[in-house]
Amino acid sequence: MNVSQSAAGAAARGPGRAPADQVAVRRANLVRVLGEVRSAGPLSRATVARHTGLTRATVSSLVTELIERGLLRETDFQQDGTVGRPGRRLEIDGRAVAALGLEINSRYLAAWSTDLAGRTLSERRVVHDATREGAERTIRALAAIAAELLGEARAAGVHTAGIGVAVPGPVDAADGSVRAAPNLGWRDVPVARLLRELLGLADEVAVVVDNEANLAALAERGHAGSRAADLVYVTGETGIGAGIVADGGLLRGAGGFSGELGHLQVDPAGERCACGRIGCLETKVGLTAAIRTAAPDLAADGAAGAVTRDPQELAGELLRRAAEGDPRALGGLDEIGRWLGIGLAIPVNLLNPEVIVLGGYFATVAPYLLPAAMRELRERAVAGDPAVSRVTGSALGFTAAVRGAAGVIVEEVFADPARA
Amino acid sequence: MNVSQSAAGAAARGPGRAPADQVAVRRANLVRVLGEVRSAGPLSRATVARHTGLTRATVSSLVTELIERGLLRETDFQQDGTVGRPGRRLEIDGRAVAALGLEINSRYLAAWSTDLAGRTLSERRVVHDATREGAERTIRALAAIAAELLGEARAAGVHTAGIGVAVPGPVDAADGSVRAAPNLGWRDVPVARLLRELLGLADEVAVVVDNEANLAALAERGHAGSRAADLVYVTGETGIGAGIVADGGLLRGAGGFSGELGHLQVDPAGERCACGRIGCLETKVGLTAAIRTAAPDLAADGAAGAVTRDPQELAGELLRRAAEGDPRALGGLDEIGRWLGIGLAIPVNLLNPEVIVLGGYFATVAPYLLPAAMRELRERAVAGDPAVSRVTGSALGFTAAVRGAAGVIVEEVFADPARA
Repeated sequence: MNVSQSAAGAAARGPGRAPADQVAVRRANLVRVLGEVRSAGPLSRATVARHTGLTRATVSSLVTELIERGLLRETDFQQDGTVGRPGRRLEIDGRAVAALGLEINSRYLAAWSTDLAGRTLSERRVVHDATREGAERTIRALAAIAAELLGEARAAGVHTAGIGVAVPGPVDAADGSVRAAPNLGWRDVPVARLLRELLGLADEVAVVVDNEANLAALAERGHAGSRAADLVYVTGETGIGAGIVADGGLLRGAGGFSGELGHLQVDPAGERCACGRIGCLETKVGLTAAIRTAAPDLAADGAAGAVTRDPQELAGELLRRAAEGDPRALGGLDEIGRWLGIGLAIPVNLLNPEVIVLGGYFATVAPYLLPAAMRELRERAVAGDPAVSRVTGSALGFTAAVRGAAGVIVEEVFADPARA
Repeated sequence: MNVSQSAAGAAARGPGRAPADQVAVRRANLVRVLGEVRSAGPLSRATVARHTGLTRATVSSLVTELIERGLLRETDFQQDGTVGRPGRRLEIDGRAVAALGLEINSRYLAAWSTDLAGRTLSERRVVHDATREGAERTIRALAAIAAELLGEARAAGVHTAGIGVAVPGPVDAADGSVRAAPNLGWRDVPVARLLRELLGLADEVAVVVDNEANLAALAERGHAGSRAADLVYVTGETGIGAGIVADGGLLRGAGGFSGELGHLQVDPAGERCACGRIGCLETKVGLTAAIRTAAPDLAADGAAGAVTRDPQELAGELLRRAAEGDPRALGGLDEIGRWLGIGLAIPVNLLNPEVIVLGGYFATVAPYLLPAAMRELRERAVAGDPAVSRVTGSALGFTAAVRGAAGVIVEEVFADPARA
């Protein structure tokens, strides 16, 4: 991931014309040693010195600090087919350091914690109507879940380096506030500050708030088997958004407003969207449109229509009906798939991603959407078949965003080991 | 630019599990020293050592090589307000090393050469109908221009490190061939190989072929005053395409097919495009549409319509008429501006660039397009006014692509000084 590399690069190049900062150089070297072991380990100290160009003495001092921080460990290592005294090799430890991911969805709250070696420590998912409850009560409920998981980690002797929070809307990265979350009716909610206060977090615990689609895209990219440098993740819930990974890094745009795929116009003669515009992709393929098209009787549940129910439950019901051959479900999903292909043609032609990962309900019913979507996509890919992205349902399903939120903290530690 | 950083990073991290490669480490360190002087110079050797973390002895050895290659020079430097013996400072030289940029446009061939310090050495622009002449004769004509400029540089004692070539279509980066250039009617033309053969180039002379929109985007980004990390360049000639800079680097996509903005559908009820699809943006804002809408009498020139004339000349004529208050020109450009805003809303919402630079004829008549375009863009920016990009006409005009082509070679040298 890019975070650690760019941090290392920036520090190694020095702070412009300012006099050299020895602290910054040491930090950059900690990152280089840790990154080297992470990408190519297990490695001997001598190999790390050769790869990084640092002296043996410097490497030893850095390794000592990284072991103390619980990030590296050194173990005996017997080369295959050799005898005699085994060598010592450095590898990533990370058992004593945790990252916590949280998610605010319009229908549920979720949490997921992992250690730095990638092992799941704990997870939670509770139904919660963030639109009805409002920002303050929602963040209190989220803080209560976070407190539980932080307590569990503490009891197990694991230090939590930080908290990542996924939210359904653009975020001000500078202060971790949600600028606007249309499907929650929120505007300028200081999520990071409120969580810090409610949890009484020390300054050195990082709190990072980001858009759910961005975080899900990072999680999908980190997930085994899909390390594509160019990937677009498309959320599939009430709202439709995209997280874009380009050249291995998240494409946030100048102000963090990238990924607004759901409100691109695909039908100038279409109906009015919740955002006030006409013919947005969301009006064609959002979960509400899918229920109306493929299972209209479910939309009658409750006064506010289908969207008041848990999206995962609705997606499961759609899948069940399609699998049973319900003609309304099959025809509806085919129509949704066609519009999805029309929408996906936009990032395909503009960004040429290797992979498009479909999240949310799209992932659940992907087999019934993809034939029509791919047909449309092949017709619309300007550079022809070689330019058609692979399109796949998310393997992480509804957990992609919360995993990505924890993953961002993991990357922060690798980019600045002093956080561990 | 990203090239040098990523090359340095890759080498510094070492080649995976392979044993350390001292040549690669030295090359990475050459790049670091050169990059340090380029970004923060003039600098003393001692400062370079501190910023890079390299020893004084290593820095001296690297500096000697960089001076020999004509990339650095060392000069006396008197700090303001001090007296006594001046210090010695390193700065970029580059006078002895040149980069050559070439462009194949459907209407003209162009060339531009620069030294590594950014001084223009020579330029050419000749009218040429690449569609009618076909690939082979066009590349022979281009090689003849290149040979002239290479000869001039040689006579002046300047070594040309490489040639960049801008072409109007997606390129296979691996072998420098044009995959498809619809407006030229070309398919799978090995531009790099043909140029190498015709010019009898040595292996160490780099030949890089890339899409004109990508190269123009790089040129705009390198141009004084627009060093935006997130920038979209939109070509405005017969064909409409985009070059995307995201986070400071070119976004090429997985197969080099990114930027196909011109063939995104903006009007499903619109007319058929040259590409065979319906309602593409190009049918609304391409130069042919502009002439038809704003100056239809010019379209009657010649059997094949307006596109047979030099686009720069046609753009000048459109500007003249609009400036004179010709109601047809003004009304037509307003209508084109509206559709341009509808088209630009797509990258604005998906990528959130800081700046959109309009090239080609858009740049010439920008004052008459922008009011309607910005109105449309403001209505369509999902995250509201803060998400609306600055939109500006290119200051480089029709030379952006050929300058970008030379610029890519300049970056190649900074990324691998052994090329100088």
